[in-house]
Amino acid sequence: MLDLTKIDHPRVVKNMSIPELKRLSAEIRRFLIEKLSKTGGHIGPNLGVVELTIALHREFDSPKDKLIWDVGHQSYVHKILTGRAAAFDTLRQYKGLSGFPKRSESEHDVWETGHSSTSLSAAMGMAIARDLKGTDEYIVPIIGDGALTGGMALEALNHIGHEKTDMIVILNDNEMSIAPNVGALHNILGRLRTAGKYQWVKDELELLLKRIPAVGGKLAATAERLKDSLKYLLVSGVFFEELGFTYLGPVDGHDFEDLLENLRYAKKMKGPVLVHVITKKGKGYSPAENDKVGTWHGTGPYKIETGAFVKTKEAGPSWSALVSETVRRLARTDPRIVAITPAMPVGSKLEGFASEFPDRMFDVGIAEQHATTLAAGLATQGMKPFLAIYSTFLQRAYDQVVHDVCRQNLNVFFAIDRAGLVGADGETHQGVFDIAFLRHVPNLVLMMPKDENEGQHMVYTAIRYDDGPIAMRFPRGNGLGVPLDEELKEIPIGTWEVLRDGCDAAILTFGTTISMALKAADELAKDGISVKVVNARFLKPMDVVMLHELLESRLPILTVEEAVLQGGFGSAVLEFAHDHGYHGAVIERMGIPDRFIEHGSVSELLNEIGLTSTHIIDRIKTMVPRKQKRA
Amino acid sequence: MLDLTKIDHPRVVKNMSIPELKRLSAEIRRFLIEKLSKTGGHIGPNLGVVELTIALHREFDSPKDKLIWDVGHQSYVHKILTGRAAAFDTLRQYKGLSGFPKRSESEHDVWETGHSSTSLSAAMGMAIARDLKGTDEYIVPIIGDGALTGGMALEALNHIGHEKTDMIVILNDNEMSIAPNVGALHNILGRLRTAGKYQWVKDELELLLKRIPAVGGKLAATAERLKDSLKYLLVSGVFFEELGFTYLGPVDGHDFEDLLENLRYAKKMKGPVLVHVITKKGKGYSPAENDKVGTWHGTGPYKIETGAFVKTKEAGPSWSALVSETVRRLARTDPRIVAITPAMPVGSKLEGFASEFPDRMFDVGIAEQHATTLAAGLATQGMKPFLAIYSTFLQRAYDQVVHDVCRQNLNVFFAIDRAGLVGADGETHQGVFDIAFLRHVPNLVLMMPKDENEGQHMVYTAIRYDDGPIAMRFPRGNGLGVPLDEELKEIPIGTWEVLRDGCDAAILTFGTTISMALKAADELAKDGISVKVVNARFLKPMDVVMLHELLESRLPILTVEEAVLQGGFGSAVLEFAHDHGYHGAVIERMGIPDRFIEHGSVSELLNEIGLTSTHIIDRIKTMVPRKQKRA
Repeated sequence: MLDLTKIDHPRVVKNMSIPELKRLSAEIRRFLIEKLSKTGGHIGPNLGVVELTIALHREFDSPKDKLIWDVGHQSYVHKILTGRAAAFDTLRQYKGLSGFPKRSESEHDVWETGHSSTSLSAAMGMAIARDLKGTDEYIVPIIGDGALTGGMALEALNHIGHEKTDMIVILNDNEMSIAPNVGALHNILGRLRTAGKYQWVKDELELLLKRIPAVGGKLAATAERLKDSLKYLLVSGVFFEELGFTYLGPVDGHDFEDLLENLRYAKKMKGPVLVHVITKKGKGYSPAENDKVGTWHGTGPYKIETGAFVKTKEAGPSWSALVSETVRRLARTDPRIVAITPAMPVGSKLEGFASEFPDRMFDVGIAEQHATTLAAGLATQGMKPFLAIYSTFLQRAYDQVVHDVCRQNLNVFFAIDRAGLVGADGETHQGVFDIAFLRHVPNLVLMMPKDENEGQHMVYTAIRYDDGPIAMRFPRGNGLGVPLDEELKEIPIGTWEVLRDGCDAAILTFGTTISMALKAADELAKDGISVKVVNARFLKPMDVVMLHELLESRLPILTVEEAVLQGGFGSAVLEFAHDHGYHGAVIERMGIPDRFIEHGSVSELLNEIGLTSTHIIDRIKTMVPRKQKRA
Repeated sequence: MLDLTKIDHPRVVKNMSIPELKRLSAEIRRFLIEKLSKTGGHIGPNLGVVELTIALHREFDSPKDKLIWDVGHQSYVHKILTGRAAAFDTLRQYKGLSGFPKRSESEHDVWETGHSSTSLSAAMGMAIARDLKGTDEYIVPIIGDGALTGGMALEALNHIGHEKTDMIVILNDNEMSIAPNVGALHNILGRLRTAGKYQWVKDELELLLKRIPAVGGKLAATAERLKDSLKYLLVSGVFFEELGFTYLGPVDGHDFEDLLENLRYAKKMKGPVLVHVITKKGKGYSPAENDKVGTWHGTGPYKIETGAFVKTKEAGPSWSALVSETVRRLARTDPRIVAITPAMPVGSKLEGFASEFPDRMFDVGIAEQHATTLAAGLATQGMKPFLAIYSTFLQRAYDQVVHDVCRQNLNVFFAIDRAGLVGADGETHQGVFDIAFLRHVPNLVLMMPKDENEGQHMVYTAIRYDDGPIAMRFPRGNGLGVPLDEELKEIPIGTWEVLRDGCDAAILTFGTTISMALKAADELAKDGISVKVVNARFLKPMDVVMLHELLESRLPILTVEEAVLQGGFGSAVLEFAHDHGYHGAVIERMGIPDRFIEHGSVSELLNEIGLTSTHIIDRIKTMVPRKQKRA
């Protein structure tokens, strides 16, 4: 058996024979299946690129040549070949190996990713730098068919094709991005896949054209043009050729001969080349290979033999399911409701909605900008679009939120999933900026529920709300396990709720941090410090009546949020206090500091940041000094 | 002569003969040339779409049928035909006619625009709503060839082509977006334009194929496939056909017969149709028609006879020119510098840089996301990218700023042009959100100079800065006319400057509002109120030494900014004060309130908002009450 932890440089694959490469592939698969069964991770994408990654490291000289992994969750094999196999026990764990490329981990990680569709722009930047410096490295972005539908990837294709920059784009086409793929581009790729080799078609047509009798005038000119333009024909890579790329493929992504031959050919060509590689997600592990919906894209731990997921005991229902299923229930009587997801039907638990309302469900692919303005367009016609989108991906649609939805004050319901820390996916995926980038946008209502029961009422409130855009953020994972009311009710916009009364200090908080605040209040009560805890469920508009009361009472106020501090909820409270002349108010803030937060479990990260009930207790004690002395 | 102000509904064009339509076109051109010579406006784009707009209103029934103008600066003819000719004297003026579609102006404006590339997503939303409601209106987005390169338009094309939704996309191809167009898509359109009609090619090829002798086996199958796939051939609209659209064109956009025939044909087709209309920007007015670089895209007032622009007397140099020319000067000795613009080489005054360093200048088209991550890619290779981008368009690249540039802490220089209020372009273009959406992003330095001399030093500072991303925002228009130092110098990061000392209150401000603060301080001095004025030129990091001094001095502090108040600079000061225990500090904030600001001159808008020296005086007087009584 090969010991993968002995690999310290990708040059080890340079002199291996094809049978040796195949043995290496098998060992890598065995390794991944075993390691990920314990840690979880993106098993499907990585099993799909074992041969491709080995072939790339064989034909290119990393780190001189630049391998740029789009999205980056498929970089595990690359990590193994670049000396990081021994670290796989710590994958996606606190202080452990990142699940994405990380420049601080290895010189072979030349570009960090997490969000999709950035690799082509980055590659173009690196290629321009190369050409200005006069060096000769190869620039090799590896992008999936799903990521290719992201607008910025298309912008980059347009630019690269125009400039004719030397670059070898590897299109890793697995017929599925995260969920099954959508879009016209997908159909184009489908035709390319099924039609066999471009070269074969080309040869055949050359032959055909030779049989055309000589004709005069315009017709002959057309025949010539036809001959010159063979590349445009039928099943060729016409789409990419039109954009200025040389198209090679389709290539069998699990066949080393085919891969190496095409990569060598691509290296000889000038200008941008697109190598269309067909891979099978989950290859070599049947539960993942047979996955049709995306369950095995990224997983938690599983039992290798059966492919059964190791169940973790969760108190309440999945937040995504709670939201989507509540919308589904409302859609039965409200024909205005239309659901939109940018490529996350599984993550957003929209399967039930999709099966019940197939005509009212739109998976637009990885296209957050389009998804948002599509919702705006629907709203202009009296529909009630429900846009299920992760907090971190909503960043892609900031301008569309501002310019299209909020500026026109349209009735779009943003269901902002994975708000707050997300854990193992790390710094590219933390949903900690949304309050800061949404709070200043006029016309938007922004709220977060304290538990799943309030969550379902907020969904109802959002669907009933007809005065403009409304957003509900909710965390990754599961609810608290509280009972759910049978009947849905509206929560008055801009109202907060006192969860616990107190006379020494007040904690204003919302969502996930409410439980820590309540726990802290319990502990503080033992020290004789009486703390009011407020569920500040509306971040905008805030409860101005309660704010005035609080500020007039002169209680010290602590705001607590699992979101960035700059411009966040705590800042909103400061703004309110000073705008209304409460200059002497004692207001302190706890939240996410001004740096990117890496991967780890949410509780480890909160502890590192200093956002736990213990930290709240300590802070309150500094804010209520006399009480503390009395106690 | 036709009286255009008598037109109250677009139905007037329904029964006109072709000669009448031509007369109407001529009159509209005469009207636009005359009116815009006084008000300024987007003359070039509108002269180009006179016949197209008339033809659209003749074939479609607005507002039942939905005409959706991408970007919207080409909607003047539409405004004339929908009863708004009489308002053209007030075009783009305070409380006057908007330069963009506006739903509050007319029921015929079904979608508001300003930023580019949104029309296809909006159209898709309207089309889905139509299909769910079972109505039968036509959905007709009109999009330029430049706007088509925006990522979100490509995302929408991909989705529309996949769903095969009924829709008639008008591609208004004028071979120039704002500046001459770039990108592979542009080349595709070029081939389509020059090659003549698709139908002609198709007929000719049918004829050719008939002459192919009968052959057996595989070859015959190929011939059949070839015949079935004529649409893929040569100069046809293969790119759009590949994406699932039926391609019609090219159509002469100034020929009514051609236009009307193709629109009628498009109406009969199922699924998405793309009508490729060739128009000439500036058609009918020779100075605009002969424009090769984009000068006549949008203009101020001009003399009709000569096409000479009415010069307004400006004190200092154009801000855009100052920045671009300073970078150009530095690029002579710093080979790391590369300039990037998303389709704004003229607006950003990059012509000089482009002519001196053609290899180091990249106009990527309307593609802000790609532009930003391209800069990130360059920076990973030790280059120093200078991204010249308008504040309002940087909104499109928020995620790329966060995820690609700042998260990787790359040395990108963002030159944020048109920061603050922009005036006539109105609410879609006001650059008032950038501080609020950038301040919370880790690693970013954000600054704004007080005048053009400090501006050139800041450019130098930004180019020399090697610790991560740095952004300088600067206003639309011209500098103050101060002398420029010969030698450039670095401004220490995070340092502010006391411009005027005072002992009763302090104003912290930056950029354009400094002059009002100084004027206010002068006036207040006459009342015996002594006000300190600080040039808070670094918005992040702030000058913590000076902040501590100020807060310890217990002076009342007024922050003044031409930017949104929520999460803005004033909030940063509040955060600092409370984070450091200055709970009793009197801090008040002035800035842009929480609503979208419409068009008008900047001074009119500032007056409306309450952001003038008079307002500052009044506010300071309320903050220094005892002094006021003494005075």
